[in-house]
Amino acid sequence: MSGTFSPSSPPSPEPTQGFLRACLRLPVAETPLWLMRQAGRYLPEYRQVRAKAGDFLSLCKNPGLATEVTLQPVRRFGLDAAILFSDILVVPEAMGMSLRFSEGEGPILDNPLRDRAAVDRLRIPDPETALGYVMETVARIRRELPASVPLIGFSGSPWTLATYMVEGGSSKGFRWIKAMMYNDPGTLHALLERIADSVAAYLNAQIRHGAQAVQIFDTWGGVLTPQAFREFSLAGMARILSRLERRGSDGSRVPVILFAKGCGTMLEAMADTGCEVLGLDWTTPLDEARRRVGDRVALQGNMDPAVMYADAAVVRREATAIIRAFGANPGHVFNLGHGMAPDMDPERVVELVRAVRETSREILANPR
Amino acid sequence: MSGTFSPSSPPSPEPTQGFLRACLRLPVAETPLWLMRQAGRYLPEYRQVRAKAGDFLSLCKNPGLATEVTLQPVRRFGLDAAILFSDILVVPEAMGMSLRFSEGEGPILDNPLRDRAAVDRLRIPDPETALGYVMETVARIRRELPASVPLIGFSGSPWTLATYMVEGGSSKGFRWIKAMMYNDPGTLHALLERIADSVAAYLNAQIRHGAQAVQIFDTWGGVLTPQAFREFSLAGMARILSRLERRGSDGSRVPVILFAKGCGTMLEAMADTGCEVLGLDWTTPLDEARRRVGDRVALQGNMDPAVMYADAAVVRREATAIIRAFGANPGHVFNLGHGMAPDMDPERVVELVRAVRETSREILANPR
Repeated sequence: MSGTFSPSSPPSPEPTQGFLRACLRLPVAETPLWLMRQAGRYLPEYRQVRAKAGDFLSLCKNPGLATEVTLQPVRRFGLDAAILFSDILVVPEAMGMSLRFSEGEGPILDNPLRDRAAVDRLRIPDPETALGYVMETVARIRRELPASVPLIGFSGSPWTLATYMVEGGSSKGFRWIKAMMYNDPGTLHALLERIADSVAAYLNAQIRHGAQAVQIFDTWGGVLTPQAFREFSLAGMARILSRLERRGSDGSRVPVILFAKGCGTMLEAMADTGCEVLGLDWTTPLDEARRRVGDRVALQGNMDPAVMYADAAVVRREATAIIRAFGANPGHVFNLGHGMAPDMDPERVVELVRAVRETSREILANPR
Repeated sequence: MSGTFSPSSPPSPEPTQGFLRACLRLPVAETPLWLMRQAGRYLPEYRQVRAKAGDFLSLCKNPGLATEVTLQPVRRFGLDAAILFSDILVVPEAMGMSLRFSEGEGPILDNPLRDRAAVDRLRIPDPETALGYVMETVARIRRELPASVPLIGFSGSPWTLATYMVEGGSSKGFRWIKAMMYNDPGTLHALLERIADSVAAYLNAQIRHGAQAVQIFDTWGGVLTPQAFREFSLAGMARILSRLERRGSDGSRVPVILFAKGCGTMLEAMADTGCEVLGLDWTTPLDEARRRVGDRVALQGNMDPAVMYADAAVVRREATAIIRAFGANPGHVFNLGHGMAPDMDPERVVELVRAVRETSREILANPR
């Protein structure tokens, strides 16, 4: 599967930005890097904007402020890509659910979905209206970013979004969605398809408004058996991929990054979806992943985020080890294996960027 | 490594109990089963005893009541093994830390260990005195259990115990222990060795008092990179294994079960420790695990515990599928891939026991 290309499509122009080049496995002089949750509470300038916005959801819905926090880490650290500041749960809200974030408790979706009738009442939202504030943010970020820095759009995976929609919020035991999966898989499939179609339209709109790559986050795929992962998580991501416009308005290829946390055993199946990039958590070594998926996809990752709690010298050592493990091959986007945490020190990011740049420049200039 | 056997040891008598036979890969007529956290809040009779004891830790420390809750699920469901009712954190307490359980917040260990001096102050406790209440409980359970039902002792793994001791309780980001691991691995190794030696003495005492098998729970090994898992989790478990008395007072072999949650990629390395049984979570199919570790070890598991939230017919279907996937081979102990949860229905266990018994009897009687 490779999306909606027709045989007569003209060849995409080769991008010049390192991040996009690495996603497409084109040669680069330095390994590009960005960080999951690079815009966030660990940055004092973020906390300032957040205080101005009030609650978290208001920040997501304010294009001016959401643009500002998206740009902050790019400015401060000189990262190679920006990622839209938003939340995966704006999609369930646009589908008709009521969303709020309670301080300390995390997200709450009222009236969680427990039966087919509730699923059938969900709408597939028009992203231009129901999620217009995201589109305005995407367009604004793209206008304010330098041309050298690509913008990544994103969404949660259907399975991951469904867990929140069925549980009513965060979960540990996944009681309700698993009961639905085991007792009434037809209803869950109906829900997952509706979410997948909503997400596909949402990501296509992000691409139209200026996103140059998109990442699908499957945060909770790791709680499934391999068989259930294929049926209830991977299938939904593949459905999105089959519906995505894989070219931006200027005709350039829009790479898709699949990131499924805790799914290291499923990499081969994920690479088969036709995505350009697999995002890895830190439990699968990059060289092992590369052996297993061959050169079908680029790899993104995968430093243990907890390294950021260690000394600067350790950050340098661990980043260097990952760059060396990947070697002088095309197709590596450096990232953490999961997001930055609020109690991490921004100075570690400075050290990380320096180490990734220096080591990769040296290695890529002297391939063995 | 196979523990402390000397070449002149007489051969162990073959056990008659299905659970012990399966652990040793001896033929059985029915697949034996027990459930992690089979004694717990989902049972009304447990909640009654718990209310009598007051807080959770008082229940652990009361041999009469701890015996009673250990026996409850064996009586109610006719399970094939009992597991000592206790908590993994009684070991850190015996090593000198102060432990309490706050309702809703989980365990708290005051003055978490953050440097070498704190680690050096820990003692390696004499289990007969510092953990005498556990030994009394083990002896009492063994006296009250029918001879046909073996008693499983247990402990947390050194890495898992260390996470609580360094974080001061439960953790999500493992900030402090990972900082120690990356910045000061020598201190963490010193801590892990001290814990391993304490656990080995503790499990040996459980065996002396009547435990006929022991399980080591590595609940948090899955948050490590494979390299760190080997160095900081597996090494500690191997150290315990090398120090365990692998025979009970009657000369019978005492199988060791290693259960590491979220460590499906590490099964081969775990099988190399010399344990008799690998406990699996539900993310690695049994047949795949069997291919990977061959016939070196028995396998325990591995139904998704969330199946217990589904209808009785689903419990039957999923249990049957697991028994069939394992086939008519020796060396399977049925279990869930993780523990029973407080909001599960005891009636599901009745259905599960019936399905495992019936299906396995049929399959084991008609090997292909």
